[in-house]
Amino acid sequence: MKSNTDELKALLGSCVSTEPEVLQAHATDKWHASALPDAVVLAECTEHVAAAMRFAADRGIPVTARGAGVGYVGGCVPVRGGIVISVANMRRIVEVNPADGVAVVEAGVLTADLQEACLAQGWFYPPDPASRKESSIGGNIATNAGGPRCLKYGVTRAYVLGLEVVLADGSVLRCGGRTHKNKQGFDLVGLFCGSEGMLGIITQATLRIIPAPQARAALHASFPQFAQAAAAVQNILQGGHLPAAMEITDAYTLAAARNHLDSGVLPADAKGHIIVEIDGRTDAIAAELGDIERILLATGAAEVVCARTEEEVEAIWQLRREFSYSLKATGLTKLNEDIVIPRSALVELVEFCASMQQETGIPVACFGHSGDGNIHTNIMVLKDAAGNDIRPPADALVHRLFAWVLEHGGSITGEHGIGLAKAPWFGSAIGPVAMQLHQTLKNALDPQHILNPGKMGL
Amino acid sequence: MKSNTDELKALLGSCVSTEPEVLQAHATDKWHASALPDAVVLAECTEHVAAAMRFAADRGIPVTARGAGVGYVGGCVPVRGGIVISVANMRRIVEVNPADGVAVVEAGVLTADLQEACLAQGWFYPPDPASRKESSIGGNIATNAGGPRCLKYGVTRAYVLGLEVVLADGSVLRCGGRTHKNKQGFDLVGLFCGSEGMLGIITQATLRIIPAPQARAALHASFPQFAQAAAAVQNILQGGHLPAAMEITDAYTLAAARNHLDSGVLPADAKGHIIVEIDGRTDAIAAELGDIERILLATGAAEVVCARTEEEVEAIWQLRREFSYSLKATGLTKLNEDIVIPRSALVELVEFCASMQQETGIPVACFGHSGDGNIHTNIMVLKDAAGNDIRPPADALVHRLFAWVLEHGGSITGEHGIGLAKAPWFGSAIGPVAMQLHQTLKNALDPQHILNPGKMGL
Repeated sequence: MKSNTDELKALLGSCVSTEPEVLQAHATDKWHASALPDAVVLAECTEHVAAAMRFAADRGIPVTARGAGVGYVGGCVPVRGGIVISVANMRRIVEVNPADGVAVVEAGVLTADLQEACLAQGWFYPPDPASRKESSIGGNIATNAGGPRCLKYGVTRAYVLGLEVVLADGSVLRCGGRTHKNKQGFDLVGLFCGSEGMLGIITQATLRIIPAPQARAALHASFPQFAQAAAAVQNILQGGHLPAAMEITDAYTLAAARNHLDSGVLPADAKGHIIVEIDGRTDAIAAELGDIERILLATGAAEVVCARTEEEVEAIWQLRREFSYSLKATGLTKLNEDIVIPRSALVELVEFCASMQQETGIPVACFGHSGDGNIHTNIMVLKDAAGNDIRPPADALVHRLFAWVLEHGGSITGEHGIGLAKAPWFGSAIGPVAMQLHQTLKNALDPQHILNPGKMGL
Repeated sequence: MKSNTDELKALLGSCVSTEPEVLQAHATDKWHASALPDAVVLAECTEHVAAAMRFAADRGIPVTARGAGVGYVGGCVPVRGGIVISVANMRRIVEVNPADGVAVVEAGVLTADLQEACLAQGWFYPPDPASRKESSIGGNIATNAGGPRCLKYGVTRAYVLGLEVVLADGSVLRCGGRTHKNKQGFDLVGLFCGSEGMLGIITQATLRIIPAPQARAALHASFPQFAQAAAAVQNILQGGHLPAAMEITDAYTLAAARNHLDSGVLPADAKGHIIVEIDGRTDAIAAELGDIERILLATGAAEVVCARTEEEVEAIWQLRREFSYSLKATGLTKLNEDIVIPRSALVELVEFCASMQQETGIPVACFGHSGDGNIHTNIMVLKDAAGNDIRPPADALVHRLFAWVLEHGGSITGEHGIGLAKAPWFGSAIGPVAMQLHQTLKNALDPQHILNPGKMGL
């Protein structure tokens, strides 16, 4: 590869790096896998990406696209070496245009930066992955990112109107556009949303934005039983409410949170907890909050706390983040599986996890987006006497969890994607006909298999 | 084909027909093209579709899938003969399940029937193509159907969670599922949404449903100038409102409507008109209606009529339908082009159409979904002394319209699809790289080119 990297440097100049610390910085994401690339292209424009891609295609060199590098499944780890093309420096917000209801951004723009630019004009880009302050739009699109607000607003795909994509041969595709409807042929935009860098490299996106809701409010409630919290989720929807978000938390996580937080924040005996955020017209918010509070109390809530100001709402979301931190504070490694189940199976899922925990002694903590059944199920890895993780039994539990999820009509990933981490289960998750179709699409769009090779088991 | 049809009858029995009136009934849609199939399979279940498809694949026989047959672009016309597989008899609503937030339906279920089944349980399937009482879900998905409510709720794609699809080799693919999020691999569901029967035949769909909004209200307003109506659309959105629908109508259509309707329904000098529907919480609707009324008056509306009851709201939508009927009542054939432009280009579009009309004497009537820039632009075909349509100059105007739309960042179709009708413009609309990718996908998924051949210029 040495002569290749020299040629690549000659072609693209200073945006090519083979410095050890740069290679190291592009070897991994937030999962544990790691592999060094031979060279990194820190692209500054689409033409850099296209030129690097043509270079790689001519020579059959693997190319792994990378945005902010904060994925959870090893999706941007260059397992076969070759070139990492990073779009992290392509951070231009080209325009935020309320008159057309669109924002045009380069792939490296951080999601939170886009959201702030929209809000500055009174407009709203709804998708809100927890990573939004550190993840980029290109990565959000490549994984079709979700977040709490997807319950009301849908996932990233619902906001992508147009894409610029560098294909496996280095040609530049522009598909979709800046219109809010477009029925010109097949859904090429959708084909690249969620394609995890395996069919092309996203360099620019035209996104749909909407007027920002006038107001928001939230509440959180603790329940003596988890099943009551799950029933509350159903009762709120059945009551005709479509909250922006509904988050649920199980007994194990609540216990960890009580150890981590000041006393009194959570009732001592709470076994279930939900957070509900609503948004809409200022005139309606207070009454709707009251309606939902009544539903929660009627469903057995021990305590309901309403948040009417921005600060109070933010405090509730901070509590949600503390739940996550409190699991980290246990000192145990957590395997965060973002499984999805049909919404009616929430209680069954948590009971199944509790039974696995009882049987094996390995804690399983469930919390997440209950409205769309997307529950982050954390298998907590126990440690041996020397303080080392005891992985095999935890891994076996992940396997059992996935088998259960698939038997119950669920999905092994709702937000993170397949990448490396979930590749072993991918075939059984989607079945042989869908797997064959993945192969067909991969072969058709990337006949040399140079785009992010080794992912999804393809 | 005679021996083939006998074999097909032997294979599938009474659901195969070669009766001339059955062939004739499956030769056309709402566009003018027509072609007889050699046989029609009136499938009653997925296995019928799969068996017919395997039969056709073995023999290289063209297959055209058909739902309700009410498309506008000749999409289900069997231009190369062969077998039409109709799913019109697959009309089972398998379930409407609020607990999971899903409905499962066979492809032949009429959209309105699904909507009613959901509403009976207080739930809502938002996509509302104007054809909803006669078009089927399979066709809605195959064309990614829109409608007025897409402004707030998005197009059909946003509601498709899972699909059962018979592929070109007769194998049965199940993709997606009944979870509200699913990041398992590529977006196969999206690949078939909008694929116009060219990549597979949709037999069953799992759809996302949401709690029905508590209340709706509407208003309509007439303006002395079209530009004021277009400005009102912007001012409403800029005021932080996201109506369910916003429809706009131009001066030509209003004049036709005044000839057709009772006097006094529309002001004599109105040159622009909008309809706004909002939905949401009962507590908020009245105040929001008042806010929007104030915006309309401040933007120059001559008259605003508010509709607060279901009957009043329906009367406004009836007025919208009358606009369409009044164009038909001119006695002229209308070429209804469902172009889309960036929302800010509304006035420019209507001025361009008026200038074409002035130059050629051919009326051009614009009305449609102004919120998402999807304007039904109707070229009215003049007649010669003998009462025959003079098509060539009208066709030339369609060509000029499409060229203008593409120059202004628009799309030549927002709802109807490409099919036969728009195939001549398809390549220039999407460009050579996207066209090549369409070829690549078609070759990969249907290597014999037997699925709905001759459409999209593929």
